[in-house]
Amino acid sequence: MARNVFYISDGTAITAEVFGHAVLSQFPMEFESLTIPFVETIDKANAVKKQINDCFITTGERPLVFHSIVQPEIRDIIYSSEGLDYDFLNTFVSPLEQQLGIKATPALHRTHGMANAGYESRINAINFTLDNDDGQTMKNMDSADIILIGVSRCGKTPSSLYLSMQFGIKAANYPFTEEDMDNLKLPEALKRNKHKLFGLTIDPARLHEIRQTRMENSRYSSMRQCRIEVKEVEMLYKKERIPYVDTSNHSVEEIAAKIIDIAGLKRHMF
Amino acid sequence: MARNVFYISDGTAITAEVFGHAVLSQFPMEFESLTIPFVETIDKANAVKKQINDCFITTGERPLVFHSIVQPEIRDIIYSSEGLDYDFLNTFVSPLEQQLGIKATPALHRTHGMANAGYESRINAINFTLDNDDGQTMKNMDSADIILIGVSRCGKTPSSLYLSMQFGIKAANYPFTEEDMDNLKLPEALKRNKHKLFGLTIDPARLHEIRQTRMENSRYSSMRQCRIEVKEVEMLYKKERIPYVDTSNHSVEEIAAKIIDIAGLKRHMF
Repeated sequence: MARNVFYISDGTAITAEVFGHAVLSQFPMEFESLTIPFVETIDKANAVKKQINDCFITTGERPLVFHSIVQPEIRDIIYSSEGLDYDFLNTFVSPLEQQLGIKATPALHRTHGMANAGYESRINAINFTLDNDDGQTMKNMDSADIILIGVSRCGKTPSSLYLSMQFGIKAANYPFTEEDMDNLKLPEALKRNKHKLFGLTIDPARLHEIRQTRMENSRYSSMRQCRIEVKEVEMLYKKERIPYVDTSNHSVEEIAAKIIDIAGLKRHMF
Repeated sequence: MARNVFYISDGTAITAEVFGHAVLSQFPMEFESLTIPFVETIDKANAVKKQINDCFITTGERPLVFHSIVQPEIRDIIYSSEGLDYDFLNTFVSPLEQQLGIKATPALHRTHGMANAGYESRINAINFTLDNDDGQTMKNMDSADIILIGVSRCGKTPSSLYLSMQFGIKAANYPFTEEDMDNLKLPEALKRNKHKLFGLTIDPARLHEIRQTRMENSRYSSMRQCRIEVKEVEMLYKKERIPYVDTSNHSVEEIAAKIIDIAGLKRHMF
């Protein structure tokens, strides 16, 4: 039977989830998780405590409770439940207070709130990426932080969006299409921004698979066409000395982190 | 002087950043951060160790080092630096091993890798959101998990994208425009999906501010027009009993978490 896990927070609970998920992913077993955000009142905290206790009674096992609760009176109620507490925030706050010689001043909604410097620029980055997705216009390429290039369905759009959403990077992207293949070269707007170009490539068999779900048995999705396009763009990357990554076996997080690392971009945090 | 912080990982370092950022945001001081992902070899680890030690020599203060390193031989090298280690992964792994009665089997790239069940469905959700952004088509509304509605520039697009990117939720969105205001009602495709509708609203003054940066001194961005539109959509939400949130003072994380909470959607984790 899967072990029950609660992610609890007086904020969005996103940090508690990310943290708990990272720790639990090291264990080769199944977990049944429930996230409860915005536990901001005594009443709600007592209701959550009851839910944890009920889970213990039903399953006979104490549920794991990952939490990042800023308000002490809420935290105490959760602590008093039958759950096993993993309080990553407070575990590290005390040693840091000692080290930094300064008291923590917990405040609600600081981690994922709008008070973060640069929140506006992040929203601007997301809008920039949407407006400059899939080569729909070339007029803003000069103000992009990075321009992802590659064949259709190699992962440009999700990667661009992750770069803007998570890291506040103005990422544009431009597709090379079937028609470009006979004489593949960089359009003028990309040529003058060559230092911002980053190539994506993909295993032709994987590309074929992805395109098949989009347009089954078409020329576009044929194994032959996928092979030709991938070969041509990789030759272009090498000829023009454009850095590139293979997206076949990587998540958007991994692709974005690799691009930032190789291109030497700044990772903003929100 | 800002205290130096390193975020280090043999993976994307996203978890280390999220965790460290959450902990440090409790402290009212400045930090100067550097993220180093993909520290996968002994050579790279030694180079990072040198970087940490150089920082200590230059600043006279031991830098804070938040890390989530899975490989023990890499971890040992970072531990041997002059940095102050905050190793959230291992701090919690041992107590969890005891509790779960099972050994952790650390594996690289498990947290943010593609091995996650449902990675494909997450990419599908992102594509769904892009294809169904801003009411560009109504034909897929029936297969949406949730449909955000609201006036132009109230936060529909970033919120939809966050829902799909972070939580794998197929979020469509539909805008009410100036022309709709005289006789505001739900289009047929939304009416038959009423249980999926979620309204966004915004303070008219904030909306005016946002629209001004987009189209200065236009009717669209005028304070009067912003007031009318917000008033009309809020009346519609109330009349049709559509749940809604005010986005004026909330980040995309907060808006998304609130929508999921109120609509009772499942948060998938990636």
